[in-house]
Amino acid sequence: MEKTSTDTLPLTMIPPEEQETVCIFGTGDFGRSLGLKMIQCGYSIVFGSRNPRAFSLLPSGAEVLSYSEAAQKSDIIIIAIHRDHYDLLTTLTEVLRGKILVDVSNNLKMHQYPESNAEYLAQLVPGAHIVKAFNTISAWALQSGALDASRQAFICGNDSKAKQRVMDIVRALGLTPLDQGSLLAATEIENYPLQLFPMWKFPLYFSAILCVFLFVYCVIRDVIYPYVTEKKDHTFRMAVSIPNRVFPIAALTLLGVVYLPGVIAAILQLYRGTKYRRFPGWLDHWMLCRKQLGLIALGFAFLHAIYTLVIPIRYYVRWWMANSTITRAISKEENPFSTTNAWLSDLYLSFGILGFFFFILLGITSLPSVTNAVNWREFRFVQSKLGYLTLILCTAHTLIYGGKRFLSPSSLRWYLPSAYILALIIPCTVLVIKFILILPCIDKTLTRIRQGWERNAKCSKSALNGQTDI
Amino acid sequence: MEKTSTDTLPLTMIPPEEQETVCIFGTGDFGRSLGLKMIQCGYSIVFGSRNPRAFSLLPSGAEVLSYSEAAQKSDIIIIAIHRDHYDLLTTLTEVLRGKILVDVSNNLKMHQYPESNAEYLAQLVPGAHIVKAFNTISAWALQSGALDASRQAFICGNDSKAKQRVMDIVRALGLTPLDQGSLLAATEIENYPLQLFPMWKFPLYFSAILCVFLFVYCVIRDVIYPYVTEKKDHTFRMAVSIPNRVFPIAALTLLGVVYLPGVIAAILQLYRGTKYRRFPGWLDHWMLCRKQLGLIALGFAFLHAIYTLVIPIRYYVRWWMANSTITRAISKEENPFSTTNAWLSDLYLSFGILGFFFFILLGITSLPSVTNAVNWREFRFVQSKLGYLTLILCTAHTLIYGGKRFLSPSSLRWYLPSAYILALIIPCTVLVIKFILILPCIDKTLTRIRQGWERNAKCSKSALNGQTDI
Amino acid sequence: MEKTSTDTLPLTMIPPEEQETVCIFGTGDFGRSLGLKMIQCGYSIVFGSRNPRAFSLLPSGAEVLSYSEAAQKSDIIIIAIHRDHYDLLTTLTEVLRGKILVDVSNNLKMHQYPESNAEYLAQLVPGAHIVKAFNTISAWALQSGALDASRQAFICGNDSKAKQRVMDIVRALGLTPLDQGSLLAATEIENYPLQLFPMWKFPLYFSAILCVFLFVYCVIRDVIYPYVTEKKDHTFRMAVSIPNRVFPIAALTLLGVVYLPGVIAAILQLYRGTKYRRFPGWLDHWMLCRKQLGLIALGFAFLHAIYTLVIPIRYYVRWWMANSTITRAISKEENPFSTTNAWLSDLYLSFGILGFFFFILLGITSLPSVTNAVNWREFRFVQSKLGYLTLILCTAHTLIYGGKRFLSPSSLRWYLPSAYILALIIPCTVLVIKFILILPCIDKTLTRIRQGWERNAKCSKSALNGQTDI
Repeated sequence: MEKTSTDTLPLTMIPPEEQETVCIFGTGDFGRSLGLKMIQCGYSIVFGSRNPRAFSLLPSGAEVLSYSEAAQKSDIIIIAIHRDHYDLLTTLTEVLRGKILVDVSNNLKMHQYPESNAEYLAQLVPGAHIVKAFNTISAWALQSGALDASRQAFICGNDSKAKQRVMDIVRALGLTPLDQGSLLAATEIENYPLQLFPMWKFPLYFSAILCVFLFVYCVIRDVIYPYVTEKKDHTFRMAVSIPNRVFPIAALTLLGVVYLPGVIAAILQLYRGTKYRRFPGWLDHWMLCRKQLGLIALGFAFLHAIYTLVIPIRYYVRWWMANSTITRAISKEENPFSTTNAWLSDLYLSFGILGFFFFILLGITSLPSVTNAVNWREFRFVQSKLGYLTLILCTAHTLIYGGKRFLSPSSLRWYLPSAYILALIIPCTVLVIKFILILPCIDKTLTRIRQGWERNAKCSKSALNGQTDI
Repeated sequence: MEKTSTDTLPLTMIPPEEQETVCIFGTGDFGRSLGLKMIQCGYSIVFGSRNPRAFSLLPSGAEVLSYSEAAQKSDIIIIAIHRDHYDLLTTLTEVLRGKILVDVSNNLKMHQYPESNAEYLAQLVPGAHIVKAFNTISAWALQSGALDASRQAFICGNDSKAKQRVMDIVRALGLTPLDQGSLLAATEIENYPLQLFPMWKFPLYFSAILCVFLFVYCVIRDVIYPYVTEKKDHTFRMAVSIPNRVFPIAALTLLGVVYLPGVIAAILQLYRGTKYRRFPGWLDHWMLCRKQLGLIALGFAFLHAIYTLVIPIRYYVRWWMANSTITRAISKEENPFSTTNAWLSDLYLSFGILGFFFFILLGITSLPSVTNAVNWREFRFVQSKLGYLTLILCTAHTLIYGGKRFLSPSSLRWYLPSAYILALIIPCTVLVIKFILILPCIDKTLTRIRQGWERNAKCSKSALNGQTDI
Repeated sequence: MEKTSTDTLPLTMIPPEEQETVCIFGTGDFGRSLGLKMIQCGYSIVFGSRNPRAFSLLPSGAEVLSYSEAAQKSDIIIIAIHRDHYDLLTTLTEVLRGKILVDVSNNLKMHQYPESNAEYLAQLVPGAHIVKAFNTISAWALQSGALDASRQAFICGNDSKAKQRVMDIVRALGLTPLDQGSLLAATEIENYPLQLFPMWKFPLYFSAILCVFLFVYCVIRDVIYPYVTEKKDHTFRMAVSIPNRVFPIAALTLLGVVYLPGVIAAILQLYRGTKYRRFPGWLDHWMLCRKQLGLIALGFAFLHAIYTLVIPIRYYVRWWMANSTITRAISKEENPFSTTNAWLSDLYLSFGILGFFFFILLGITSLPSVTNAVNWREFRFVQSKLGYLTLILCTAHTLIYGGKRFLSPSSLRWYLPSAYILALIIPCTVLVIKFILILPCIDKTLTRIRQGWERNAKCSKSALNGQTDI
């Protein structure tokens, strides 16, 4: 339900006697923005300030009093002051007893303090009900009404009635409250606005390094080698040809990297004979960023698809095709049709297109709203079955691309093999191991381990538990 | 808000006296995983077991007692034992009186028992408050923290305070509780993790059969016929040419099939003169899987688009074009420019592109989060107006493709018409009927029927109701 | 969790004594549909009617009584009568005292009445608890179970217990209740189903006018001009060539229009020396529809991409290329390879592809579920950094397209420059101003203004507030 700024107009027509009064401590930027928005939404606002003189910047209609006077006007007090000044509140302990204090503060960096601001506030003012809220909302968004990004206000607190009252305010402002449980969640809520794609960092660095390596490799083979050996200027290849070699290789390698930790984990479980020992940290972390790796791979695959489709439009290709046609027309050279070449070329394209199609399906199912609409069985089906189908199709696409040239010594330049050979290493490894793992004898053991069986456990007890308990 | 496994670390620093104690009956895989996760999130856990000896596998810090001893330690008891053993609990009726029992069980197949596990539990332990929860969460996901798929925990129960307490636990574990109402919803919640795309089954089978039929049809016309009559090997066409004939035909046919039940329903309503009689079951079912049929059609359309765009890259096409150019260059044959052909070719492409574009728009609006952001009026506008525009554009695209060859006898092979003719049957039927239905005289009657008017009703009463009631 | 119509079957087996009775006033279409659905979901329904005779159309199992008799059977009464007849209820004030009245009504147009229907009802029956609900749900959707579109039922009311009971009913019917706060939200909830993409109107009109202007401009230059000067029939260009000129120009212009208000706002803030004065209305409105403008621009960019990729398939292009090759083959004319042309052509394509790729990324992050999954810092990073990168790439793509012909007088036709020149005006303006704004001296001032500093404020007070308050 989109709320535009005009939607709040009817709400300003509430008779004053019905208005709820809320107190805001602090007249900084966020305090004023929140106050203005709340006045627009029908609340009556009292600001508490150390210098309760008239402020020209405060929204019209708001009163400014000293902290203790303001606190007496309302039983909900929004604490819009910096954590460093929370100790001011210790002098007000009596006035604040039983009141709802809303902590809206953010820190400048993660883990700046040993405990969250909200928990610190709870220690300072033990008699009050502390609710953490609004810290994920920007002052600018409140002012402009442009809440395109997150309308979600995370809320936590130990007192459920206090939380409920704050959630009512959040809803009245056109935001969506998300109850995160007790005040223990405050640390996480305070860290949330500080993070910048934390799960994407490793995948992005990894693919950046991969791309740079592949780019240099291709430049050596396709630009420097012909220049050194034949004095030909092939620099223009760096604009389209080489990217269209780097992107598919990066895509296929990353797709292999997505499925590699799964097979490593299976081998580890088989070797250990149990699933009850934690995987090493690097494997855990790797498994947790598979989604991000897969989406980056999809991005590269998409770029590869478009770079391939523009091939016939390129000046170089048009020039080359016209020239070779003219040469053959003049020399009246015959070029018989090769069914093998037609099959290879068409299979190559067909596998690539189908692999790309299933890859996009995988990408769509990883959209948050689609993921939420499927259950675990369906999610696992898509990510595992469809994922391996994609990997097989894309690997076949690359293998056929090599075609007859595969591992032929003539394609070596300075002992460097064709770049596409590099793309095959990880996917083929994954597929071979996976093929071994699904052999009936191994698969049976693995399934038993994953159902809780242990090679070294006392069997009687395990069996008993297995029967009774989930 | 993504929670990584490291986020739970600060939460383990809670002083023990503040920890809430929760009891888990059963030391199976799920019970232990849940217990471990809850300990990490600051709960104190007591396991209840038939054999309360020390278990090496239990998370460190958890106590193991007999059922009745464990039950006395907490007023929330998570029942992680199989339904078959629920009768053990009847001996504990006194101890469990007034406690909250959380049923986390799943069955192996749908409708395995006459009533849901949670309702069965409620019958066995009448004095307790039963809450169904956690059954949609996998033990592996709890352990690894990799909750990429559904973080949603469906919850139901008759006692709202009990539900509230369980929802607090769910939130503390970083999951999203979804209140599904009373215990009556337990059947559905228990069936949920067992289903595998139930709404997709019929559409997928239908399109698979359609594709196989079309593939065989095209192979007969394009591979077997030239082989039999001219001994030409056209098998390579099976890789790209024939798929690129099957996919567009399947796409257009399925798109027609999406809009066909709508016009059938309209005819049925006109014939019956009322909207208050239920449609036959097959029509109801058909209407309910229109979205899935449409998305499969979009998939085929996407494949058709890419298969078409790669045409100039294919070996066969490049060979053929070079050869025909050389032949003409040698024979100095003239090939005058035909404005008609240019118009037909460009219109054909333009209609196809625009149809594909609107088709993708339709697909995007069927994403759950986009659907939730629009109201009924907007949804109907997009799905009906935009949908028919797409159907018209795609049908025009196919008609122009046929161009002058349409229904020409020379294109028959073994009395089989060109495959694209098959694609036109259903869409043209739908468009013709729809055109008749929107003629003013018929549309007026239909609109009145849909607003509640009935041909055979006593008019006075209907009119009266229509005036007063919604 | 998809609920199909069959899922409700098990729920009908509830023993009658456990059924909750709900009363529905009004036997119109919506009242009957809701009643039928509630009976299927295990409720017992009593209809209240002015004419409590047997109605053939009512769902079997439902009782029909007079208003006052029916009201005594239940403490939840769904008011399914038109607002115009609400005054009937004033006679029942005593019977309705303390009951929950659910207002389900909608109006025919926005702001039809001074206050919302629900607030009007609250005035008429002061002793009852009014809850607004169900108005966003269609009767047809309730009957058919086809709740593909919004399953969200917006709810508001002043009494939280009453709201809770209505939300339980909503959940029992398989819908998602969304608590919107107090009865003040009723106006907005009642307006919601009446709106048809309100935020899209201006962007759509603007781009339609832009496209028509560009189309006419291109027709004059590319069809009428050659016809007048050389009597050549180029009308076929209107199908593909001219759209493929209109779409990219519209896309780039709209993308510039998305970022233009941002730089205007920055200039305004610099000029005023404060951020605390509201922007003029037109600028506010412009800023609020940037997302829609951007998505339309993405649509045009998508069309441009496909129109470009089909170029080699067009009859005209194939004819022209074959002819020019043949001419050159016959005349044995040389056409040396130009590295400059290769570079320009490949850079042109590469910038276009990368710009399109980042544009699609921007589009994906504006999907509601993706937007909800990122915080403000991440959202701003994507929309600002990635957005400017896209703008720079697309502008470079267009500049290189012009290549050597840029502003050359020979490309003027009737003094009209090439169409692509028009596309560059707004993006280049935006980029130049933006470049000036990020010069360190200006950027520093702007950042200070955005952090709350004011050129004309008394510095002492501001500094003090800045230190203490958020």
